[in-house]
Amino acid sequence: MERKKNISMAVIRRLPKYNRYLKELLRTDVDRISSKELGERIGFTASQIRQDLNCFGDFGQQGYGYNVKELLNEINGILGLAKEYKMIIIGAGNIGQAIANYTNFERLAFNLAGIFDVNPKLIGLKIRDVEVKDIDELAGFLKATPIDIGVICVSENSAQTVCDMMVSNGVKGIWNFAPVDLEVPKEIIVENVHLSESLLTLSCLMNDRTYS
Amino acid sequence: MERKKNISMAVIRRLPKYNRYLKELLRTDVDRISSKELGERIGFTASQIRQDLNCFGDFGQQGYGYNVKELLNEINGILGLAKEYKMIIIGAGNIGQAIANYTNFERLAFNLAGIFDVNPKLIGLKIRDVEVKDIDELAGFLKATPIDIGVICVSENSAQTVCDMMVSNGVKGIWNFAPVDLEVPKEIIVENVHLSESLLTLSCLMNDRTYS
Repeated sequence: MERKKNISMAVIRRLPKYNRYLKELLRTDVDRISSKELGERIGFTASQIRQDLNCFGDFGQQGYGYNVKELLNEINGILGLAKEYKMIIIGAGNIGQAIANYTNFERLAFNLAGIFDVNPKLIGLKIRDVEVKDIDELAGFLKATPIDIGVICVSENSAQTVCDMMVSNGVKGIWNFAPVDLEVPKEIIVENVHLSESLLTLSCLMNDRTYS
Repeated sequence: MERKKNISMAVIRRLPKYNRYLKELLRTDVDRISSKELGERIGFTASQIRQDLNCFGDFGQQGYGYNVKELLNEINGILGLAKEYKMIIIGAGNIGQAIANYTNFERLAFNLAGIFDVNPKLIGLKIRDVEVKDIDELAGFLKATPIDIGVICVSENSAQTVCDMMVSNGVKGIWNFAPVDLEVPKEIIVENVHLSESLLTLSCLMNDRTYS
């Protein structure tokens, strides 16, 4: 499939939602779906759906709708789910443990290869068969085991240091839960989950319903 | 201050970031800042910053920049931080406990008033002086204690039920961590944190650097 260039982040951010709804359709034995029906389920307009999917090539047939399985496969390819990823978590506090316990991620393609912390009380703890290691072992571990994704679940003060250590040892993607904007070389991808910002968006919207 | 109508969600989502950077400026005793300098710190262009802040009224003076404290106060007002919020958490698993332990939220304006779970092993557990209650007590609790925000940290199968129970008992804002799109009356605000979708965005970007 020829993929078109310069797809906006807005489209990218909608793709995981397509993945979720298409999987649900497959589970319920729906083979084929029109952009109108798919739109009604997801909450997008039919024309939005046609536009989004057109960014990636020529899906669907006029009047016949989309083949669900084919569309899911294509979208999974675009989402990078054709491969597997090795992931480590830095920080074995509540958020780190929550991430480690999400078996869902493993079902997708993300395999937990290690967890690291500074806290002696947490080092040695086993989370789903993965033992929490001392952060001092991180650099050595990364040299021996190539890791794709590093998940940062430490405080804002340590986040940049931990990030630098991972990036200088070959980690290409950072999933950052610390409330800071990390500085990384331009080839490194950072995806932030900033919980406070999400909560403030909620309170903002609760106080004003005039936003579009 | 006269607030303009129909501000886009894109602007709203940038406001918490202004809050974070302006607080940092105040902490380091910076009283006044130009849109150019502020932009360099946040990573937005100066014109983006002027555009964003213009949505909310007439901040700053040509050539003199913004008064940091005044700007932060205004933005906090827009974010709804002039009030306090009572918040409950449904689901005392890892994510629920992580949220409960974030004292940061309380420093903002969000006060934890209760935690509920179905699991007898978790009921009675204390997290920062708040005891986990049986979910069966939820409706009664909400009738006695008006709650602004309900945080959903249960599995996707229970999320809608829990949401309905909260909404029918006066909860106005839902912060949803379950991987489902909730159905709510139109006056209710839902803010989702969909972790799998965030992780898939990361893998998508790691596989293709042609996105704009």
